[in-house]
Amino acid sequence: MNGYHVAVVGATGAVGTRMLAMVAQSPLPIASVKALASKRSAGKTVKCGDQELTVEETTDDSFAGVDIALFSAGGAVSKRFAPSAVKAGAIVVDNTSAFRMDPEIPLVVPEVNPEALRQHHGIIANPNCSTIQMVTALEPIRKAFGLKRVMVSTYQAVSGAGQRALNELFAEAQAYLDGDVTKVTPEILPTGGDKKHYQMAFNALPQIDVFEDDGYSHEEWKMIHETKKIMMGDMDDPELKVTATCVRVPVPIAHGEEVYFEVADANADADAIRAVLAQAPGVVVQDDPAHQVYPQPANAEGKRDVFVGRIRPDEENSGFFHMWNVSDNLLKGAAWNSMQIAETMHDMGLIQPK
Amino acid sequence: MNGYHVAVVGATGAVGTRMLAMVAQSPLPIASVKALASKRSAGKTVKCGDQELTVEETTDDSFAGVDIALFSAGGAVSKRFAPSAVKAGAIVVDNTSAFRMDPEIPLVVPEVNPEALRQHHGIIANPNCSTIQMVTALEPIRKAFGLKRVMVSTYQAVSGAGQRALNELFAEAQAYLDGDVTKVTPEILPTGGDKKHYQMAFNALPQIDVFEDDGYSHEEWKMIHETKKIMMGDMDDPELKVTATCVRVPVPIAHGEEVYFEVADANADADAIRAVLAQAPGVVVQDDPAHQVYPQPANAEGKRDVFVGRIRPDEENSGFFHMWNVSDNLLKGAAWNSMQIAETMHDMGLIQPK
Repeated sequence: MNGYHVAVVGATGAVGTRMLAMVAQSPLPIASVKALASKRSAGKTVKCGDQELTVEETTDDSFAGVDIALFSAGGAVSKRFAPSAVKAGAIVVDNTSAFRMDPEIPLVVPEVNPEALRQHHGIIANPNCSTIQMVTALEPIRKAFGLKRVMVSTYQAVSGAGQRALNELFAEAQAYLDGDVTKVTPEILPTGGDKKHYQMAFNALPQIDVFEDDGYSHEEWKMIHETKKIMMGDMDDPELKVTATCVRVPVPIAHGEEVYFEVADANADADAIRAVLAQAPGVVVQDDPAHQVYPQPANAEGKRDVFVGRIRPDEENSGFFHMWNVSDNLLKGAAWNSMQIAETMHDMGLIQPK
Repeated sequence: MNGYHVAVVGATGAVGTRMLAMVAQSPLPIASVKALASKRSAGKTVKCGDQELTVEETTDDSFAGVDIALFSAGGAVSKRFAPSAVKAGAIVVDNTSAFRMDPEIPLVVPEVNPEALRQHHGIIANPNCSTIQMVTALEPIRKAFGLKRVMVSTYQAVSGAGQRALNELFAEAQAYLDGDVTKVTPEILPTGGDKKHYQMAFNALPQIDVFEDDGYSHEEWKMIHETKKIMMGDMDDPELKVTATCVRVPVPIAHGEEVYFEVADANADADAIRAVLAQAPGVVVQDDPAHQVYPQPANAEGKRDVFVGRIRPDEENSGFFHMWNVSDNLLKGAAWNSMQIAETMHDMGLIQPK
């Protein structure tokens, strides 16, 4: 059959299982799908649409004949195996932070900077989840009115820390409702990569990823520098100023973001911004406060769009506006944006099925 | 006995029960305590320290002999009965929005504007919970460095909507964990005063109180105008610019706030701000990211302080800083600030025990 041979690395994870679903639902011609993971997961079965796949261990030889390799098994796995996949002739869409800040590697949100895909050398980096949904909503505003400053406060879902973190949230929540949250000992949240772990159920934790020396968390650092690279082409671009505070909240899936921003055009108003966003690809405006219509994580789960509402001016600072956006961090923030990159490369003629 | 005769109106509520605890723990000489509520609650018993009190229905005659009346039974009850209490010779500390914007009525956080108490005519308004914890942390910064702009994003606890809202959160959470959140029909959240009600468990709702015509929620309006009245003496003060986005998160008790602010003094830095806050009354600095020390709602519950951390500069906008504060919305945000107002009036000689 004439079509793409696809491999998903990290196929058993929260993102990997959704990557398989995105492959199954893709309009691209798909010839075969391979589910790869660690040795520990080899032999398990996973679903790709109606197909049942047996998970194989990822090795240097896994990528023979593969055209599209979607990686979501952690930065170390990407660094170890992405070069093998490229060598075998695959294009790699990598959903880890391994290559994002490499100036030679495109960091792409298809609605924002698809042209960056033309510069690829085999690997394309998928941005951080919280960055993706923000730039999808900000780019149409930047194009229409110019964008000077962005200040974002996030309300991030627990699934961003993986399936085990989700299990920890639910176990803690049940223990809390049973009267003793200490029956569950936190082992992952706020982040598996740091020393101390805290109760997440019925709590809010202002730490996502580890802290940098300057007091910003690495998640905040990512939002600042990835936003600049995606929207401005340079991770240190000084023209667009970005600052961020990232907070984990006890929501399973879909991040919320309060985005406060300054536009350049003195004539911009909330209605004009709303009109621009209503036409924007990947964006759905849900903004009718009089009827209590605004984006909610519980409604965004399982959908591919970025939902935007609560658009309103700062009434005392001309040019400054607020908006509240919500999107499924496992789909637009990860699995869907990754597959969408492959679909966009196909549409642009950058890849062809064999 | 020589001491104050105290009445708590709304004694069975989430705030009222805590007001009784604050009275029991007060260093003031207390001669008697009266628990008042609606007719529906009359005859119930409530605790004031070791004392058991029988709840009485609130009437115009309830305040004979009362020196201090703490109200937290909704704006309508305050409007109806506060004048009777004042007529009977009591000072009223009102924890509703009924009188907050009356220019003749002091709106007081004792750490911030105790001198405003001297202007009272019997009623003192207790500010909105989210405002109190923010201004407690901002006033020391304003005094030391000047304050030009405040932009706050809140992560507010469900108990701000009352005990029934808390019950709704827990019932929904259990239904969610049992596999069907729709088994519980939301009847209160996001706000009992509006038409539609949404799932709060494992969700985030960018609505607190009803929406104004300009797209801001009334909670956001309160944060803007109460902050100006408390810190600047005028609810429309143009010198201090304030904007707010208020979001309810599935946390039972203690609000979190990301406060982004601009100081006037070009020499201010994060260390200097931290040093000022370390000396500030009612504030506890918890700010050591290298050791994962930062304020958390789960740790603030039951405490009277405002906990502040994540203090850091916006690295691209000189004079702008972030901080993350957390406080028990039912204590410093309501019951404690109310009783603290009475204690401060005593200390200032504005009231005396009979």
